[in-house]
Amino acid sequence: MTEANYTDIAYETIDSAAVITLSRPKQMNAITAHMGIEVRHALARAEDDKNVVGIIITGAGKAFSAGADMKALQQIGQAGGLDEFNKNKQHNESELHANPGNLDVPEGFSKGTYSFFASISKPIIAAVNGPVAGAAMSIILSADMRFFGTSGFVTSSFPQRGMVAELGISWVLPKIVGPDNALDILWSSRKIFGNEAKELKLATRVYPDEDLLEESVVYINHLAENCSPVSIATMKGQVYRDLFRDPTESFKEAHRITKAALKTEDFIEGVKSFMEGRKPHFPRIGRD
Amino acid sequence: MTEANYTDIAYETIDSAAVITLSRPKQMNAITAHMGIEVRHALARAEDDKNVVGIIITGAGKAFSAGADMKALQQIGQAGGLDEFNKNKQHNESELHANPGNLDVPEGFSKGTYSFFASISKPIIAAVNGPVAGAAMSIILSADMRFFGTSGFVTSSFPQRGMVAELGISWVLPKIVGPDNALDILWSSRKIFGNEAKELKLATRVYPDEDLLEESVVYINHLAENCSPVSIATMKGQVYRDLFRDPTESFKEAHRITKAALKTEDFIEGVKSFMEGRKPHFPRIGRD
Amino acid sequence: MTEANYTDIAYETIDSAAVITLSRPKQMNAITAHMGIEVRHALARAEDDKNVVGIIITGAGKAFSAGADMKALQQIGQAGGLDEFNKNKQHNESELHANPGNLDVPEGFSKGTYSFFASISKPIIAAVNGPVAGAAMSIILSADMRFFGTSGFVTSSFPQRGMVAELGISWVLPKIVGPDNALDILWSSRKIFGNEAKELKLATRVYPDEDLLEESVVYINHLAENCSPVSIATMKGQVYRDLFRDPTESFKEAHRITKAALKTEDFIEGVKSFMEGRKPHFPRIGRD
Repeated sequence: MTEANYTDIAYETIDSAAVITLSRPKQMNAITAHMGIEVRHALARAEDDKNVVGIIITGAGKAFSAGADMKALQQIGQAGGLDEFNKNKQHNESELHANPGNLDVPEGFSKGTYSFFASISKPIIAAVNGPVAGAAMSIILSADMRFFGTSGFVTSSFPQRGMVAELGISWVLPKIVGPDNALDILWSSRKIFGNEAKELKLATRVYPDEDLLEESVVYINHLAENCSPVSIATMKGQVYRDLFRDPTESFKEAHRITKAALKTEDFIEGVKSFMEGRKPHFPRIGRD
Repeated sequence: MTEANYTDIAYETIDSAAVITLSRPKQMNAITAHMGIEVRHALARAEDDKNVVGIIITGAGKAFSAGADMKALQQIGQAGGLDEFNKNKQHNESELHANPGNLDVPEGFSKGTYSFFASISKPIIAAVNGPVAGAAMSIILSADMRFFGTSGFVTSSFPQRGMVAELGISWVLPKIVGPDNALDILWSSRKIFGNEAKELKLATRVYPDEDLLEESVVYINHLAENCSPVSIATMKGQVYRDLFRDPTESFKEAHRITKAALKTEDFIEGVKSFMEGRKPHFPRIGRD
Repeated sequence: MTEANYTDIAYETIDSAAVITLSRPKQMNAITAHMGIEVRHALARAEDDKNVVGIIITGAGKAFSAGADMKALQQIGQAGGLDEFNKNKQHNESELHANPGNLDVPEGFSKGTYSFFASISKPIIAAVNGPVAGAAMSIILSADMRFFGTSGFVTSSFPQRGMVAELGISWVLPKIVGPDNALDILWSSRKIFGNEAKELKLATRVYPDEDLLEESVVYINHLAENCSPVSIATMKGQVYRDLFRDPTESFKEAHRITKAALKTEDFIEGVKSFMEGRKPHFPRIGRD
């Protein structure tokens, strides 16, 4: 995966973390089709980079993302729907073509606009630094964890725009906050800020705004120093496959995977380092 | 749906809300077969009424509902079971016959005694004003949200009566509070009051008793003023279908529904009103 | 089920509770294959004993369990995997052979190393008195409820050892704490103590350390004095079958089971005792 000049996002690495920043600050980082393509490319790049153990997605300036770009949406409405709208556009995105996602997860995840995050073999943290509206909810719900700044908030906006629950949000959200809170969030569109988000379990963590990015990097660094990247990837796949699977299938797979893990170098090093009272050294995932 | 004289419930509209009150106060609003028929009729009436955006179910006096009527239950036991008991009764309920539920949800929901609430195309809030015992738990668990007064509480009572988890409670409750808390609630029958209910996520909200009904109406009014009723109905169907569905199916449906929504008048009005900085005007569901 | 001399656990009854204590205190109660066989035998004994209404599993001394025995694990690694390791061992465990589990639950549960707890017809409480590491997480996650002492904590340790999510943990844990918290717990291996565990819903209850065992016994005694053991067993089976089942199937089963319950002696006694304002008397499960 080569470097690329992004226009709608920024990409950098800090310590063991890749930081992808949605970056159209004048439009509150509203999502465009092109931004989606860049995010996908950047995730492939991070997955492929041996120095990267985990990925952080955040927003430039005061917003995370205002959701779908309203001007684009209005044009879509005026054009009579999405297909007609797309006919009027030409993308030449071949330079940004990417095919990330090494984990085996259900097709619904791997082929979804953002839900393919589940197939990325490295942890993805959404660092929610400001408003997350509409379709942008799918970005943070597709991340493995959601770290909120206290000023970060979610607002669905769907029924205010005559829209529906896009991109699988109606599947994921009730599994995180329960069906009643999911309907409340989707319907009322009231703003759920960091502390309430933590209470509702929508936020995995909440931090003071000024510490949000640093704490996210610290989290990834902790994994980098202590964990087998292969273990992390394997367990991520297990959790997403298990979200909708017969327990019998899951338990059988766990048995098979555990037996296989017992034969790996990572397991031998993991036990050895523990017995010797030192930190383990595990190989990274990706290329130099 | 014409008006009807109810004996076991009361029905009124307040602003944009229909309020259905279980009303056998001397029996702590204990459930009878007839009450169930009246609730069904009243829900059809509310679903059919253009002025109604959401529905509130509450109890008359100090109780929400004591559950199945104990005298009826004892007669059922003495008669040797439910079928035998019913043979001894004649209902002529044709006047109250109703067939509510415009949403497409799994048969288990749409045909269940109270779980058919999931198929009603308008939000249903259980306003828990007092004790909810036994089978009445199914009423509040079938509602989309549960607003508790601080004195509202749940007590299962099933194992004290030699009963089991009726009416799908064993399916729904663990998805709201987790399997361990579900078993604790079902087994111990200890009283879970408003504040603890909120902590366990059994309550969506908790309010001082004296504000409970008003806050429930305020919530419905908020939806009435800001939301597309069609969006609300569509998202309700999505959430209930998604409670047990392969994510791949769900994500495909979301894609299809989103594309369809982009062509609706509600979507055009939703985006237009946003760009113009005014409240949207959406058509209501039902008849004048 | 006859008595047996256990080496790796202790077994006693206190009031209506059977208390199974993992007991290799010098090894922090690390799990051995033999300990697993003894736990299984002890559960069969408790299920079979009419005096026992519920079961408590706890650890001797300051730990609950350190997980798989590290020395055994190292030998497994050196032997080139589990099968090879087992070839080098001979167990003659026929004396401890047992076949507990009267409830009909999915095969994944009933055949799992600890997940068969779901098939035991009596409540199982994990009394978490200290650290629970690695594979020992499966013991407490297979229990029906988790009561933590404030010093009790969980730490996954899997990625530090190059391991994966063993024994179905990746299936169960997200259903209790949500997928994001499950990944956080599995990946970071940070210690989740009693109070945070309660917040995350990993703990059903949290008590001061010195009250933990007594409160667990009090809970079982409460069930013994007030509940039909058959109702408790039936509802346990309902909840575990319903964790992954089409709601339509579940609601039909609930209807069938409820009708059957209405014909039982326990139901008649349950209603009668209520009408007479006295405690019910229900027959116990098991043999004298």
